This record gives sequence, C-alpha cells and structure tokens, in this order.
Amino acid sequence: MRRKRASRNVIALLTDFGENDHYAGTMKGVILSINSRATIVDISHHVSPYNVRQAGYLLWASYRSFPDGTIFVCVVDPGVGGKRKIVGVETDRFVFVAPDNGLLDMVRAQEDIHQSYEIVSAPRIDARSISTTFHGRDVFAPLAAALSQGKSVKQFGRLYKMNKAAPIFYERGKENAEARILHIDRFGNLVTNIPAKYFDRCAVRIGKSKVTTFIRNYDEAPRNTPCIIVGSSGLFEIVLREGSAAERFGVSLQEPNVLAVVG
Amino acid sequence: MRRKRASRNVIALLTDFGENDHYAGTMKGVILSINSRATIVDISHHVSPYNVRQAGYLLWASYRSFPDGTIFVCVVDPGVGGKRKIVGVETDRFVFVAPDNGLLDMVRAQEDIHQSYEIVSAPRIDARSISTTFHGRDVFAPLAAALSQGKSVKQFGRLYKMNKAAPIFYERGKENAEARILHIDRFGNLVTNIPAKYFDRCAVRIGKSKVTTFIRNYDEAPRNTPCIIVGSSGLFEIVLREGSAAERFGVSLQEPNVLAVVG
Amino acid sequence: MRRKRASRNVIALLTDFGENDHYAGTMKGVILSINSRATIVDISHHVSPYNVRQAGYLLWASYRSFPDGTIFVCVVDPGVGGKRKIVGVETDRFVFVAPDNGLLDMVRAQEDIHQSYEIVSAPRIDARSISTTFHGRDVFAPLAAALSQGKSVKQFGRLYKMNKAAPIFYERGKENAEARILHIDRFGNLVTNIPAKYFDRCAVRIGKSKVTTFIRNYDEAPRNTPCIIVGSSGLFEIVLREGSAAERFGVSLQEPNVLAVVG
Repeated sequence: MRRKRASRNVIALLTDFGENDHYAGTMKGVILSINSRATIVDISHHVSPYNVRQAGYLLWASYRSFPDGTIFVCVVDPGVGGKRKIVGVETDRFVFVAPDNGLLDMVRAQEDIHQSYEIVSAPRIDARSISTTFHGRDVFAPLAAALSQGKSVKQFGRLYKMNKAAPIFYERGKENAEARILHIDRFGNLVTNIPAKYFDRCAVRIGKSKVTTFIRNYDEAPRNTPCIIVGSSGLFEIVLREGSAAERFGVSLQEPNVLAVVG
Repeated sequence: MRRKRASRNVIALLTDFGENDHYAGTMKGVILSINSRATIVDISHHVSPYNVRQAGYLLWASYRSFPDGTIFVCVVDPGVGGKRKIVGVETDRFVFVAPDNGLLDMVRAQEDIHQSYEIVSAPRIDARSISTTFHGRDVFAPLAAALSQGKSVKQFGRLYKMNKAAPIFYERGKENAEARILHIDRFGNLVTNIPAKYFDRCAVRIGKSKVTTFIRNYDEAPRNTPCIIVGSSGLFEIVLREGSAAERFGVSLQEPNVLAVVG
Repeated sequence: MRRKRASRNVIALLTDFGENDHYAGTMKGVILSINSRATIVDISHHVSPYNVRQAGYLLWASYRSFPDGTIFVCVVDPGVGGKRKIVGVETDRFVFVAPDNGLLDMVRAQEDIHQSYEIVSAPRIDARSISTTFHGRDVFAPLAAALSQGKSVKQFGRLYKMNKAAPIFYERGKENAEARILHIDRFGNLVTNIPAKYFDRCAVRIGKSKVTTFIRNYDEAPRNTPCIIVGSSGLFEIVLREGSAAERFGVSLQEPNVLAVVG
C-alpha cells in the first residue's frame, strides 16, 4: 500500500462553479492550507449549473486518464445545505467524493466499488462554522486534502448503501435505457450515450432529421453533412465537420435530450 | 520566521485578463522562470474588465482560505502605464500586491496592515524594457516570484501611505455606507455588501420589487420566490432557487448597483 | 546538459478545447500519470475553434516568458485523425510540439530551429488504441510527459522538413506581407501583425475609418477615440480607452481580417 499512499497527491476537481467566481480558487486555497504538496487539476468548472448528468459524463470520460490514487472531488450540488448526503467511494485505483445525487452513476457502472461511505465529518481549518451554501470550501476541499495525505474515506464516514443507479447507456430493446445527449462539447459535437457497438448498425433521429452517415475520422466527413463518429470515450457523437451540430439542430443541454434510434 | 519563508510558495492570481488571451499564462511563465517551485493558484481571471470593486470583493471572499504566506497578486488596472502606484502590503499571514486603486479596500477593512510600500523596482528577467501596457508580466509577476523566494516588499519599494478606504459595508443610518451589489455569481446570485447581522431585520428593494423572504439554506427556499440568504462570506445574497436572481431582476454589474434597504 | 534536463518540468498547453469539456483536464491526467513532477501551465484553451493563426500568435506572444526547457504543446488541429503530421521542434531553450499546419510559423520566424521531426510514435499509458479524434490525450500528452522526463523529440520521430512558412509580419511594399488582425483580446483590442518600427509612420484603415492617433500609454489616449499603441509583444494594437475597439469597428476573428495601411 505504500506506493499508493505516496502517489495520492493528485486532486481532480469537477464543479459547476464557473470561473468568474472565487469558488474554485478558494477550494484550492483550503486544500493547499492542509496539504501544501497536493497537485490540483481542474477537469472542468463549467458543468452547466445543477446538471448532474453532464457532470457524471465528464467524470466518466476523463477519470481513467488520471494517475493511480487520484482523488476526484465533484461538486454539482443543487441540494447543498439540505438533506442530501455526501458520499465517498473507493476503488482499486481511485477515490471519488460527490453528493449522492446520481453524479457517480456512470463511474459505478464501470468500476468495482469496494465500499461507499456517507461523509459525516470533515477536517476543519479554522473556527468558522460550516456554511450552508459552500460545502466545496467547508467539506469537500478539507476532506480531499486529508485523503491526499493518505487518510481513508472510512475515517470521515459511515458505511452507506448508495441508491441503485439508473441505466446509463442506450441498450436496444431495453426499457428505461433510452438514447440521450449527455454533453455538448465546445465544437458543438453532441455526445450521446450510445455505445460504439452500434456503429453502422443504427441511425439517430433528431427532431425531423435523420443522421445516417458513419465516419471513422473527420477526414472522411462530407462537408455540411451531420455524421456519427465514435468519440474518444467510446460513445456515438453527432458531429458536423468544422461546424457545430448543436447549432445545426438547435439543441441545447437544457432540454430533455432524448434521441430516437432507428433502424 | 523560518517557517513563514518556507511556506511562501503559493502565489494567488486575480485579474481581469480573461482566459482567451495568453496574459495569465505569460505571468505564470515569468513566475516559474524565477522560482520554479512556486505553486500558482488562480482565484479568477474573469473579473469584469476594469471592475475594481468586484475584484476587491473576490479577493476578500477568498483570501482567508489560503495558506499562511500566500502572495496575492491582483491586476485589475485601468491606469496601467500611467501615474497610478503599485502597492505592496504585508499582514501577519499574507502579502498583497495591487494597483492603489481601491482594490485592497475590503481587505484593509479586515486586516491589520503593518506597512504599505509603493513598488519602485521589480526584478528583471531579461533585457527587454518594461512595457507600458502589461505590468502583469513585467512588474507584478517578477515581483511575486521574488517575494515567494522570501524577499520582502520593502526591498522593492518605499514606505507609502495609501488613500483612506471608502466605506465598504452597508451600515444602517450611516451616510456614505450605502447598500450595493458587489458581485453576481455564476448562478445569478446577487452578492451584496449587507452584513449578516441584519438577517431578518430588513428587506431589500430592487427596482419595484421587495425581497422579504429570509432563508437559512436552499432547501427552505420556496420555488420561484427571490430570497435573502447569508452567503458563504457572511453577506446578504439575493437568490432564486435553481434560477437566476440576476435574470429575474434584469441586473448586471455595469450599473451603479445601489440597493434600497427598507424596514 | 544536466541543468537543461533538470529544468525540463514545465509543460505549457495551448489548445482550442475550451474549458467546458474534460479535454484539457484529461491531458493533464495523462501527463501526471507519466511524470508526476511535471508543472503544467495553461497558456490558453480558448483559441477560437480551428483558428491556427490566432494560436500561432498566442504562442509567439508568450513563449519567451517561460523557463528554459519548457515544452510547448499546441493542439489546434482541425486535421486530427487524417493525414496531417505532428511535428516536434527543438531550439536552444525550448521544445515545441504541434500539428504541421502553420501554427509554429511565427515562432519559426523568430527562433533558430535546429531540427524538426515528424512524430511517428508516442509513449503509451494503457492498452487502449489511439483514438482518431483526441490526439491531445493519446499522442500529445504522453509525448510531452516523456519529453519532460528528459527524452528528446528524436526518440519519437524522424527528420522532417516543415513547409516554408508564409510571411507573418507586415512589411511595407512587400507582396504577400499584408497587414492583418491576428487576435482580439478580452478588452476588445485588435492585435495586428504590424511591427513597432512603423510607429507614427503609417495609419491603419478599418472599413471606412482611419486610425491615425498614436499613443505611448493608455493615459495619453483621448476618450472615445480609437488609437494605435505598440502592445506588449511589439506589434500595433488598435485600442479604445476603457472601451472595445472590436465592438466599435464590428470586427470579429472570423473574417479575413486584412487591414489597409496608409501613408
């Protein structure tokens, strides 16, 4: 275990705090107050406000690229200050901390979870009481810092059984496993929950349009034609070469974003 | 003093440079050229252009969460290249560097300032002359790097008496201590300068609306009703549960942002 | 050479990935998986999508401020997954890695390039195959990490002659050396490719307007009058004091952005 503890310096942050505010910076200040040797990496602070599903996707698409021992701190937390629980989850390689609001569902579908804990205490850095609105600063950051020093989630929590995760990925013919848009990236690519195994085997309908062109890389994409490509995380993405599929179809992350899969 | 010097590795940046430009990255390059062991943290680079008051709030709301010895470098500087002074200020725990334009007023209202200095020289990293437009690169960054190596502000400045700070916080019945919006956060919450002690004791009028509902956490907030909550920095915030108070009231940071306090 | 290797810890990233996505964070995860001691600095992730010329400017304007040994990783890469080459370039002080799409032209105009290499292999961090859409994660990041450990570009590439760079800077009377807008910064300043040596010697026409007022610093700028100033990287910038020249002239980076130089 010695190696694991030693490498537990990376703390990866994923929030909907944006960067106009001091919130992410303040969390980093707290972390460094406790562990001055922590390496802090931003996954993103631009999750759409309160969009738990998008946060779950961004975490899932990135976490496997991080070093063993990384502590993922996910704060998309519309229920802050209320009755929702904060959970800590350990796997062979990683630690995840997040509100128990579905954010970890995609990771749970992929990873062997040994144990999950409800966080009931967090280390304190000063005498101020815990705010009801900024648990990022008052709970998540000090907890992450303590974990990065080699402490375990168990020391701050009690065993807890998380809710059963909802189905995440589209599965043909399976009820409750609908096709959806999980995320829209900067280039306007629509990231869906349809796995690579359906490549060339089904089309996707958005509104009145049907996307039926499959490509293996952007060079193959005909100009001005929406295409389906398997993106870097192994899911269908609907893309428009050097353009924005999101603009073309007038899609935003606010909508229900259910897709029809045909053929 | 040894401990303090040793821990003087954290440099926190607060600017209105945005992140579309190379400006913040260039400052980091300069800092690391001088002190390769510096830990650089972004508070925010998205201060509204030239908005000194907002910058002052963001600094004040975050600085206490940082480790002892942190050097705060604040570059919201409409007067760059002109006659404005750059000041360096030391407290028991921290060092602050900023233009003398009011940016440090909120911190000064909170902290014992031992001494303030006008910066008259800065370390140089190459033979290029100091630009008239980018003191972030040519003055602030090399100065911060030198301070992070344990040097003191005094070595680069001369004693200087800063202007008297304007009143910052709302105080009932006190002239010149008006209620204001200091900042609008990503969620559209309106951060005011009204201290927590007025909780449940006065209402706030914005335009033609009166906000009279006080809540202790977001769970208590009735849907679709603007509320007052004491935010994480101890000030009134006007909020709308899972919505944007800024949008509801059509408020932006450009306006004078004076509020009426009633009752 | 020992010093150089030792200082080869800084990796500077420049991409058009934005920060809504996990892309930049994922690259950092990969880098830290290989070299946990790397210091990663963001120049910007907000290059306008696919805007290779703007990326070239941002790199050129910033790279000289970085420590010796810095590895610059530039991913503005509309041709990803197709036939375009990735090149690695070494100078006395730095290493640059980018697609061979013109992004490095401005640096090449400034630096003695010893040798350039086409990257033909990259270190691998797991068994997943290289994606066709995210070479930032699968090629650039692991390569950068290996270089930061002291490996040389040569170990991953073969000698390669880059295309002749197009003329970058405006040169009076020289064909193919037109005046252009390279970048628009957060303040709406228009950064051109006109060198400082033309200061006070020629005016610039934008649309129907002629900008003829030269200033040495912002304090000299008359209100409400577009001016020319030599910016921090030694090029003409068209600016409007406490306002946006880009808005005033209705200019965006999407257009061809050729300027007329007169007088």
